Amino acid sequence: MRLADIIVQTLRNAIGAARVALHEPWFRGNEWSYVKECIDTGWVSSVGSYVDRFERDLAQVAGCSHAVAVANGTAGLQVALQICGVGTGDEVLVPALSFVATANAVKHCGAEPHFTDSDFASLGMSIPALADHLSEVAVLRGGACYNKRTGRRIAAMVPMHTFGHPVDMPALMDLAARFCIVVVEDAAESLGSLIGTRHTGTFGSCGVLSFNGNKIVTTGGGGAIITNDPQIARRAKHVTTTARQPHRWAFLHDEVGYNFRMPNLNAALGCAQLEGLGQFVHLKRQLAHHYQEAFGAVDGVAVFHERAGTHANYWLQTLILDESVADQRDLILEATNQAGLMTRPVWELLPHLPMYRDSECMAIPVAESLARRIINLPSGPQLMAEPQ
Amino acid sequence: MRLADIIVQTLRNAIGAARVALHEPWFRGNEWSYVKECIDTGWVSSVGSYVDRFERDLAQVAGCSHAVAVANGTAGLQVALQICGVGTGDEVLVPALSFVATANAVKHCGAEPHFTDSDFASLGMSIPALADHLSEVAVLRGGACYNKRTGRRIAAMVPMHTFGHPVDMPALMDLAARFCIVVVEDAAESLGSLIGTRHTGTFGSCGVLSFNGNKIVTTGGGGAIITNDPQIARRAKHVTTTARQPHRWAFLHDEVGYNFRMPNLNAALGCAQLEGLGQFVHLKRQLAHHYQEAFGAVDGVAVFHERAGTHANYWLQTLILDESVADQRDLILEATNQAGLMTRPVWELLPHLPMYRDSECMAIPVAESLARRIINLPSGPQLMAEPQ
Repeated sequence: MRLADIIVQTLRNAIGAARVALHEPWFRGNEWSYVKECIDTGWVSSVGSYVDRFERDLAQVAGCSHAVAVANGTAGLQVALQICGVGTGDEVLVPALSFVATANAVKHCGAEPHFTDSDFASLGMSIPALADHLSEVAVLRGGACYNKRTGRRIAAMVPMHTFGHPVDMPALMDLAARFCIVVVEDAAESLGSLIGTRHTGTFGSCGVLSFNGNKIVTTGGGGAIITNDPQIARRAKHVTTTARQPHRWAFLHDEVGYNFRMPNLNAALGCAQLEGLGQFVHLKRQLAHHYQEAFGAVDGVAVFHERAGTHANYWLQTLILDESVADQRDLILEATNQAGLMTRPVWELLPHLPMYRDSECMAIPVAESLARRIINLPSGPQLMAEPQ
Repeated sequence: MRLADIIVQTLRNAIGAARVALHEPWFRGNEWSYVKECIDTGWVSSVGSYVDRFERDLAQVAGCSHAVAVANGTAGLQVALQICGVGTGDEVLVPALSFVATANAVKHCGAEPHFTDSDFASLGMSIPALADHLSEVAVLRGGACYNKRTGRRIAAMVPMHTFGHPVDMPALMDLAARFCIVVVEDAAESLGSLIGTRHTGTFGSCGVLSFNGNKIVTTGGGGAIITNDPQIARRAKHVTTTARQPHRWAFLHDEVGYNFRMPNLNAALGCAQLEGLGQFVHLKRQLAHHYQEAFGAVDGVAVFHERAGTHANYWLQTLILDESVADQRDLILEATNQAGLMTRPVWELLPHLPMYRDSECMAIPVAESLARRIINLPSGPQLMAEPQ
């Protein structure tokens, strides 16, 4: 039997024979009643009680002091980087293995991405490899880090918690401090993921969440900046709401701001979804165990398992092919998708995309290996729920 | 009796004594049922049938071939300008009298605003004044227009249809052609406003609409780029959706794109709202006549009236104070708002804001006069509706 057919069979045994999406939103709670309240009261837009509540609820879930709701994760990353001092001509360390938004947000600040290699254990930035690379290419001058090759300041790094699996943030923060580099966490995929008992996104100066439709919690479209720094939170709120100064009626704006608000309608959906987060994480962790057992007997593949000391939300379930069968990846994608079981490969490596082909990039053997070997499996929490 | 008290009294006689907002959304149609369908089906996010339908409905309403729904008007303007060739170091002509987003979008492209004077008859860009100014400062070189003073290319102009009152677009298009300047219309306030029978936003290369909560039609937050140019529409869709190339599963992005989609949830609200647009415009035009009659007897003020040949949506009703009583503006704002009748002045002139103080700016005597004399009155279509 072909490996592709074995995988289709294993998936069918594990989650049933029906057509199944990669990740669908799940609205079983107060979604409709909160959204209906917005429509009934007319408060659907940029001001409204659900935005305030969503920000409070998020800060509580993440165990940090502040959350600022924004239009989406990309917008949140752009603003977070700008607030943390990234500007035109700077360089920002970004994982080669990430969704394109991580690098785009850097470009939207007028800065340039500098791509880094991955770690097999976390799927995120490799800290030892980055340490070696910085020792080679970086020089400290006047309390700032510069790339000797390009002459540009390396102003920030953006570790991304791939599929909800946390990067080793304490070690990364040590490295960043050693090289005077600000850390903004791309926590778009890791709402509900912890290192010990501490939420991802709260180790760096700030972290950025996403609530797109495919995420563990959705607002339709949306994001948030989370931080323990009241000044970053205040700046984030100001800059994302056209930088308008409070006044009874006058339109006084004190800097070039953005319209990156989250509408109240979307925040209402988010409030209801957040109420379900605990259950979603629980079910997705069950699904991971379930897949781990089901694929335990299949040679040549392994279901990715969280690192010790971390508590992952398992946003997307991940099958890792052995190098020896990596050449069958597309056959497996083909067979599973044709069987109605939606799977996908990981993102094209960012330095391979045309607009980033000439960007700075360290050697990325691990990212290249992972890019050939990752297949994401159907991951919705519904798959482990009792039928209603 | 003080003018402020006369105005409070006139407003109360015209629209009743209850507390009234400047502009509230009005949800009396299919808003619930469309939004509920999104939640019931799980299609709340970046892909979904309401986005497609909203774009089709918008194109039909505006009488153009294409509409691309985006996250908001500011994002739409930024992308429209970029697609029309505006880039770093360019200059863009922007009315001094506009909401700050018009100038911010220019800055977000890396370009610089160059502020222009207003016209008493349209409240928008003065075409004769701009023609004189360009004759003085502009020079044509290789089919492009340059500012002799700054050396920068004047790449585009962004006429804004203030409060829904159309700029004289045929005349402006002639002027723009004469100086080889691209026109992107800021139609954020003018959905439903026509010149003759042609919709605002369809004269320039493209136009940008807004559906913020205070607009005539709302999606909570949102915007759209409308155009008759299929290539602009295709580029707008591509760039606002992370520039991803179609593929069954691979993540191939071919340029630095944005996450400027409108979520399906918001588009659903928009589809229902668009069904009411005809009625909203009708009621707001009735309200304008009603105010014109009510204030006809008040010395020193006039309710702004659409230019001949135009059919305005009267998004915000506008009281113009005579110069002789302009010094009473803040007293009037104070008295009306204290009486629960929400009014507001026009925006602070953009070249007076700190971040635009050093921008290029022609003489703006008309804009300065209008800025002292405009008061927006309560404008919701509800004010003229039969009680339910």
